[in-house]
Amino acid sequence: MKSSMSRTPPTVALSSIAALTASLWCAADPLPSWNDTATKRAIITFVGKVTTPGSPDFMPVPERIATFDNDGTLWSEQPMYFQLFFALDRVKALAPQHPEWQTKEPFASVLKGDLKGVAASGVNGMLEMVATTHAGMTTTEFETLVGNWIATARHPKTGKLYTEMVFQPMLELLAYLRANGFKTFIVSGGGIEFMRPWTEKVYGIPPEQVVGSSIKTKFELRDGKPVLRRLPEVEFIDDKDGKPLGINSHIGRRPIAAFGNSDGDRQMLEWTQAGDGARLMVLVQHDDATREYAYGADSHIGTFSDALGKEATQQGWTVISMKNDWARIYPASN
Amino acid sequence: MKSSMSRTPPTVALSSIAALTASLWCAADPLPSWNDTATKRAIITFVGKVTTPGSPDFMPVPERIATFDNDGTLWSEQPMYFQLFFALDRVKALAPQHPEWQTKEPFASVLKGDLKGVAASGVNGMLEMVATTHAGMTTTEFETLVGNWIATARHPKTGKLYTEMVFQPMLELLAYLRANGFKTFIVSGGGIEFMRPWTEKVYGIPPEQVVGSSIKTKFELRDGKPVLRRLPEVEFIDDKDGKPLGINSHIGRRPIAAFGNSDGDRQMLEWTQAGDGARLMVLVQHDDATREYAYGADSHIGTFSDALGKEATQQGWTVISMKNDWARIYPASN
Repeated sequence: MKSSMSRTPPTVALSSIAALTASLWCAADPLPSWNDTATKRAIITFVGKVTTPGSPDFMPVPERIATFDNDGTLWSEQPMYFQLFFALDRVKALAPQHPEWQTKEPFASVLKGDLKGVAASGVNGMLEMVATTHAGMTTTEFETLVGNWIATARHPKTGKLYTEMVFQPMLELLAYLRANGFKTFIVSGGGIEFMRPWTEKVYGIPPEQVVGSSIKTKFELRDGKPVLRRLPEVEFIDDKDGKPLGINSHIGRRPIAAFGNSDGDRQMLEWTQAGDGARLMVLVQHDDATREYAYGADSHIGTFSDALGKEATQQGWTVISMKNDWARIYPASN
Repeated sequence: MKSSMSRTPPTVALSSIAALTASLWCAADPLPSWNDTATKRAIITFVGKVTTPGSPDFMPVPERIATFDNDGTLWSEQPMYFQLFFALDRVKALAPQHPEWQTKEPFASVLKGDLKGVAASGVNGMLEMVATTHAGMTTTEFETLVGNWIATARHPKTGKLYTEMVFQPMLELLAYLRANGFKTFIVSGGGIEFMRPWTEKVYGIPPEQVVGSSIKTKFELRDGKPVLRRLPEVEFIDDKDGKPLGINSHIGRRPIAAFGNSDGDRQMLEWTQAGDGARLMVLVQHDDATREYAYGADSHIGTFSDALGKEATQQGWTVISMKNDWARIYPASN
């Protein structure tokens, strides 16, 4: 008796309490910043059927994996990915130690504030800038750099902290899914180490549930103490085909719900849909120039091509119109 | 009020209940298969101090990350890693389709049951065998192969299923740590996809908390349906220096407790120790030839070198003597 008690964790009791709490929770509108449209109803219907015991679509808690793209899905991404603003600010901060940057691209353009000049340096220029600003230091040092930046840097158009430009309806959705036994993951093309320092506080998603692009690291001893040094070498690009690979590597289970906003998320949604049982595939459409941004097929950032729109229609994916489906874009407290 | 209720998950209530349940839980001996030695007391003391609010060593729940090596730490690994038995059985199963294997090493030796001949084919022979038996199929197909094998294959010496050769004291330790708010991870040199099909059932560790060595995969469409095909190309070796890298990549947080048994775990324990605050580093010593196996510095599998023993002593790491510290090795029900 004693041995059996020690070996069986109190899973049953805790799950029941969690279920009870979730029910109470849902008595209030769990998605108050969503307008009462077909989109909101599709999400609530899906969650209802996969969490109702006895439903033919019921999914046990461990299978309730939901993956979210970050840029353009959980927070804004215009006029460029926020991580690029971080890179630019790092170039400016490091410039005094690099007088040669005054005449060397893409650094010279960065220091002149000429974003078109930066873009003109192409992929190689971008890679050099990332290598300079994201590598060379230890993982701990990089975490501190990101933490300090994200706590203070402000968006050029809104003047908000970047973490104030997260989407309130998506914060509610994350909490709603978790209250219903889902484990929520980020699966983003952004840098995994750029997101981890703040996702737990901002989204309630802990570092171990963040999947992203990465550069290689090396184990070294410094003064006899082990560190991981960040190398200027790409390890993994978590975008397009890479998203199912990243999901497989980090999660090892297929999501039953996936949320994205661009061509980079297509394979993640396809991979999610290809599993057995009920599935929810959702794309955020940026069609609100007044409250956020309006962009799509012609945008270099967060491209939502016509082909993606066509696939969404054919496959029955849910498309969120930010303009029509969301009563609010950013959290009210900002 | 409504909005605020919807945005705040019921974390506080659930944590309190978890803490209460954990207390009740601990009233019984949480580690009944451990003898009452200094080793058991060191573990219980550590858990007590990091979970007692107000203690200078208190760690919030999210920081309670514990990592476990698998081979030789959670289950046996002699006379060779169990995954190699899987590879050998796969060669035998595939042999009818490969008549050329009758004369080609290392396959010819495998088919003759000549393990020394297999070993003589060296690293290249082993890599060829792994490429043949672990790659070419989809991730889903591989999962099925592993699942079927682990449910039926038996150890040549004990006649037990391999999953019956897990260490009962470690099962209790995993449950005890989880009851105290720890998140338990596997960090093993073994194949990540070889472990995931059964770790949740056997250890209570879900796929997303398994870190291991991997081969590359490729996203492809088969009959219009996406699959991930396993490629005969090493992606990551989660051993030695690789363990801190794997921890950083998959967990993104430094463990506060780490458990291993061999030279391959040294860097994981060093990385764990190098963090701030209370830490627990533990090595399992295989010194019980009667109930399991006795091996150490001279073993090719699970080498526990004199240098590792010396470092453990100098750094105050806890060393488990299977002979003296464990009242039982394998679960009783076998």
